[in-house]
Amino acid sequence: MDRLKVAVLGATGLVGQHFIRLLSSHPFFEIAALVASERSAGRKYREVVKWVLSCPIPDSVADMTVCPPDPDKIPKVDLVFSALPSDVAQSLEIELVKRGFVVVSNASNNRLDPDVPLIVPEVNADHLELCKVQRRRRGWSGLLVKNANCTTIVLTLTLKPLHDRFRIRRLVVTTLQALSGAGLGADAVPGLLIVDNVIPYIKKEEEKVQTESRKILGTLIGEEVRPADFAVVATCTRVPVTDGHLESVYIEFEHEVTVEDVVHAFEEFNRRNKISGLDLPTAPPKPIVVREEVDRPQPRLDRMEGNGMSVVVGRVRRPEAMSNCVTYLVLGHNAIRGAAGNTILIAETLVKLMPEVL
Amino acid sequence: MDRLKVAVLGATGLVGQHFIRLLSSHPFFEIAALVASERSAGRKYREVVKWVLSCPIPDSVADMTVCPPDPDKIPKVDLVFSALPSDVAQSLEIELVKRGFVVVSNASNNRLDPDVPLIVPEVNADHLELCKVQRRRRGWSGLLVKNANCTTIVLTLTLKPLHDRFRIRRLVVTTLQALSGAGLGADAVPGLLIVDNVIPYIKKEEEKVQTESRKILGTLIGEEVRPADFAVVATCTRVPVTDGHLESVYIEFEHEVTVEDVVHAFEEFNRRNKISGLDLPTAPPKPIVVREEVDRPQPRLDRMEGNGMSVVVGRVRRPEAMSNCVTYLVLGHNAIRGAAGNTILIAETLVKLMPEVL
Amino acid sequence: MDRLKVAVLGATGLVGQHFIRLLSSHPFFEIAALVASERSAGRKYREVVKWVLSCPIPDSVADMTVCPPDPDKIPKVDLVFSALPSDVAQSLEIELVKRGFVVVSNASNNRLDPDVPLIVPEVNADHLELCKVQRRRRGWSGLLVKNANCTTIVLTLTLKPLHDRFRIRRLVVTTLQALSGAGLGADAVPGLLIVDNVIPYIKKEEEKVQTESRKILGTLIGEEVRPADFAVVATCTRVPVTDGHLESVYIEFEHEVTVEDVVHAFEEFNRRNKISGLDLPTAPPKPIVVREEVDRPQPRLDRMEGNGMSVVVGRVRRPEAMSNCVTYLVLGHNAIRGAAGNTILIAETLVKLMPEVL
Amino acid sequence: MDRLKVAVLGATGLVGQHFIRLLSSHPFFEIAALVASERSAGRKYREVVKWVLSCPIPDSVADMTVCPPDPDKIPKVDLVFSALPSDVAQSLEIELVKRGFVVVSNASNNRLDPDVPLIVPEVNADHLELCKVQRRRRGWSGLLVKNANCTTIVLTLTLKPLHDRFRIRRLVVTTLQALSGAGLGADAVPGLLIVDNVIPYIKKEEEKVQTESRKILGTLIGEEVRPADFAVVATCTRVPVTDGHLESVYIEFEHEVTVEDVVHAFEEFNRRNKISGLDLPTAPPKPIVVREEVDRPQPRLDRMEGNGMSVVVGRVRRPEAMSNCVTYLVLGHNAIRGAAGNTILIAETLVKLMPEVL
Repeated sequence: MDRLKVAVLGATGLVGQHFIRLLSSHPFFEIAALVASERSAGRKYREVVKWVLSCPIPDSVADMTVCPPDPDKIPKVDLVFSALPSDVAQSLEIELVKRGFVVVSNASNNRLDPDVPLIVPEVNADHLELCKVQRRRRGWSGLLVKNANCTTIVLTLTLKPLHDRFRIRRLVVTTLQALSGAGLGADAVPGLLIVDNVIPYIKKEEEKVQTESRKILGTLIGEEVRPADFAVVATCTRVPVTDGHLESVYIEFEHEVTVEDVVHAFEEFNRRNKISGLDLPTAPPKPIVVREEVDRPQPRLDRMEGNGMSVVVGRVRRPEAMSNCVTYLVLGHNAIRGAAGNTILIAETLVKLMPEVL
Repeated sequence: MDRLKVAVLGATGLVGQHFIRLLSSHPFFEIAALVASERSAGRKYREVVKWVLSCPIPDSVADMTVCPPDPDKIPKVDLVFSALPSDVAQSLEIELVKRGFVVVSNASNNRLDPDVPLIVPEVNADHLELCKVQRRRRGWSGLLVKNANCTTIVLTLTLKPLHDRFRIRRLVVTTLQALSGAGLGADAVPGLLIVDNVIPYIKKEEEKVQTESRKILGTLIGEEVRPADFAVVATCTRVPVTDGHLESVYIEFEHEVTVEDVVHAFEEFNRRNKISGLDLPTAPPKPIVVREEVDRPQPRLDRMEGNGMSVVVGRVRRPEAMSNCVTYLVLGHNAIRGAAGNTILIAETLVKLMPEVL
Repeated sequence: MDRLKVAVLGATGLVGQHFIRLLSSHPFFEIAALVASERSAGRKYREVVKWVLSCPIPDSVADMTVCPPDPDKIPKVDLVFSALPSDVAQSLEIELVKRGFVVVSNASNNRLDPDVPLIVPEVNADHLELCKVQRRRRGWSGLLVKNANCTTIVLTLTLKPLHDRFRIRRLVVTTLQALSGAGLGADAVPGLLIVDNVIPYIKKEEEKVQTESRKILGTLIGEEVRPADFAVVATCTRVPVTDGHLESVYIEFEHEVTVEDVVHAFEEFNRRNKISGLDLPTAPPKPIVVREEVDRPQPRLDRMEGNGMSVVVGRVRRPEAMSNCVTYLVLGHNAIRGAAGNTILIAETLVKLMPEVL
Repeated sequence: MDRLKVAVLGATGLVGQHFIRLLSSHPFFEIAALVASERSAGRKYREVVKWVLSCPIPDSVADMTVCPPDPDKIPKVDLVFSALPSDVAQSLEIELVKRGFVVVSNASNNRLDPDVPLIVPEVNADHLELCKVQRRRRGWSGLLVKNANCTTIVLTLTLKPLHDRFRIRRLVVTTLQALSGAGLGADAVPGLLIVDNVIPYIKKEEEKVQTESRKILGTLIGEEVRPADFAVVATCTRVPVTDGHLESVYIEFEHEVTVEDVVHAFEEFNRRNKISGLDLPTAPPKPIVVREEVDRPQPRLDRMEGNGMSVVVGRVRRPEAMSNCVTYLVLGHNAIRGAAGNTILIAETLVKLMPEVL
């Protein structure tokens, strides 16, 4: 097929850079426009970006002229990927959708709107049905689809197979999150404050985990998603790690479980999930890689598993005297699976499952 | 009073160095002997120690000649502080106790023996009654008293006031532990493996938290401690932090609680605990410091609170829809409150409460 | 004597915080006003500062109301300490001096003006003579005195005794600088970019080392300072260290030297330097501490030497076959000796040596 | 051609792991034996190795049985790669060579022996002529060829083109070295000592840089290498970086230079060096990559340049008023270009240039 022309909004930020890296040789998509702030507009991408990835800037985009964040000046493309900061995203994304653009966005605005799909493809690609609801209700010619919070994506990939089988009643999660999650802008954590330290708070993160996980694991009934009804307690911390969110998860189920049950559920999910058989280019061979070693997953060693698209689970244990509980660790690359990569995977899913909306 | 003469076993290790720092100008104790491995024996302390604290080696010990770990060669002292690795500690400590030494030890051996007091003074100084049981049952002229695991000490200081009031039913804790917890010996974590990383496993640590916390919070009934009967799930991780263990705690109580109840219980504990009124030199003004800021406690900023003897609590929250649950973070200096400092505080408590056993 | 009333400009920044910590119980000075940006003005200090030091905010300033950076609104004080960013500093400092304020400033503007003293007290307190020149030439009723660049201060403390004796011909220095040197503002280094990394460039730093070191080591002749005439090559890098600049120094002298000569010159300087005998409260017992251990100085262990006011020298070596060369490492606390502490020491020197200008 | 069978000595160490990774799909070589300590012998590789690379253990070696370090038990292979610690290496390597093995070794013993080639292929592949001298003089049927010190390899790649053109008179280098350089054994730097710190000393490193660089840049005259006669001053420090040695280099030449001259010499060296045209599989497209950005090279971003076989140069400057001097930074991956990779490249060079010695 011809590759679809795409624009990347927020192209100079950290997530924007990951989009560019992942899209620079993508079989479905071709970068046709880069959009950044007014300050960068009109200049060549390589002159305005502070590129911080270890690969070079792809030649195909290095000399592209950056567009301003002005709906009138963004060329017509088939798909828009948004890596905008959420304060900027809200108005620009909606304006673009009104003008007929299909926007798949990593920004946090509108994620909880009832008619906006919030997607982790393996988990709830079926929620893309909301696209039709959204168009009808809003009267938009375009479409807005949302990528979820990074921590939540990593978490829900493991929750889905467990919730389906054993019904989650209560979830307690403590996260150890990487610095790249805060990007390079105003929220960036100064090195001075994180060397030899942990910061036990990330603004708005815990709320996102608590609300988004219930929507993602919710059930599409008719025209709406009924949220999963388990209770979630999240404590989110920042650690001196560049990439890779590690999460310590404790779950109480309605039903009894064994460690073998849990591992088996993960493996079964690798074989059968909502995008099995679609053969999407960014989908990893195994969404969930279970490791047996007692000291894994580790951010530096495991974050690039499945090109950064797999989550790695370790230390699955059933606590003594709690036969309906399980605890484990899960790690995922926050900037790939948790941001640019998952957003691209959503777009790939759209292309395959709902080509009519494009 | 005359200062008691003390020996420090394992004087060259990291905890040994903290003992020396804290004892070098102590009103109750005076260092009379330093004991280290055969390799160091017979040489001056400053020549054999790889001193890693930022204060200088105290002049009073720098030129002391190191004794070998041989019971025959350790001079008679009033009290022995042990910072030995547990494999060496077991036989040497017991041998010394048989010979009449009073040993207050940080090593992990024998901690769960029914007649060995395992003490966090503010929490369970009353368990020192076991000293009498121990002497009678074992026929030892000396005495063995144990300091608890570092993570457990920090944790139980906060659990005690809550368990007394609201009865803990279930406890889920994820720790972010400092590198100094592994010392400088065979268990030291290589820098190569921890820079830009988290290691989600610490050998034997979770078992210690689970068993020791129940003993420490147990009830002395007659001649034995009946362990507290709550369930504990611990996940212990190592982070690139030099000092200060941070713990993310979730507790389910038998009774309903509010955030105000919890904070009030902590403050009440500062006023009334098992060593209140004893005026011990190493006891901090407040064992528990509660901070209001949303991003505290932080290891680098808070670990030296109360000269490293206070634990710092933050982010006390009651999860939505769980009226009998609470979650908070607690930080303590693992090498001071969690090791040398708490061990010295135990000895101070012994001196004040049970001078007859010395 | 009565304490002089002082204002701190830039009170919420990192250097401002160090000023406040060091001045909060100072025998000469008493904080009478805190000045910060318009955004903070009118609010209590503790509400606007993001305090990042491990000590608490001193009670005496926590509830002070912050003044705006408006010369009309800054109350009359005896002395002004400036920790402003240099872009803001230039106009405000000069305006204050014109109005009669004595400003001792850490900001980098005006440092190279011929009639502005640029002072490291032990090295060139005699350059304070320029105060008189400045007043006469400029017609200012106030006074502007400058603290030097942090890296340069640490360096010149060791250069002075060597240049006086052996005449420096050429100097090659590579620095490993701490994150606190970049502060918490726009220049702060994001943690994401410095974990597991070194950034081999610090904007304008090398020029400062090269020019300021020659001025500081210059000779006051009549009404001007004739710069020292050695050649300086500096390469400045940023490393993942919170505090403490480490510098690897290679010097070629006009004369032959031995290691003993060099160490002797340092020790002699400790006994006799430009502020010897003044008994200034912030002056360390030894400006230069020479360590014999092969692996010192180290930032984390040595930065607080002399309460952060000493520099620590180690590994003094004479390279093989270069009898007129020496190489060594020197470490200093950039935020104390390199910024707030040295600035306060300059003010103390003024008070003692030139009370008439105040 | 048929692939040569190779053994890897020291297969479980960090350099051994890099050898295995690089050799697992090598066109010239095939791993036939893994040798490790007695403790590991007889067990499967995957059971004894603490694998710390982020790629998985290659399937082809995971189940190989480890041989003991006993010459009688090492199977006959065409080539031996040694990653042994130098204390073990000395006797075992020589014994193997006596028995006819061709040993290409990363261990530091014997590097300065006059008849042992010490090779950085692009720089001095011609020194392999010493192989013939070695065999004749020693009467060995095997052969011992040495890889150089990691820091020295990175440095000499840049020195060679400059020395050839402008004659180096004096060299001052300060290094910022990665933790992987110390391996995972007894010399490993504990995380506790390097977080928030720099250790300004690496045992024996400076001597290696000083002596080995002169041998590598020396001239083969008849049967011996006459060392280059410039003076070298090295100061080696350890920084909290996992991989990648950064070096700050200052050179005084006999002749005048310009920045353009230096960059041109590097580029010319990329086109014409001692292995140009050999098309060796591990040789990078450019041995020296020159970057223009003011803040490069950086370890985390640049260490994998050329698959870890290129060195990256930045900030080439000519100091003011020193027309025969230049300063620049160079970075290389110490475990790849500085160890396993360069050793393999030496072996590849041997295969192509001197097949008769194999």
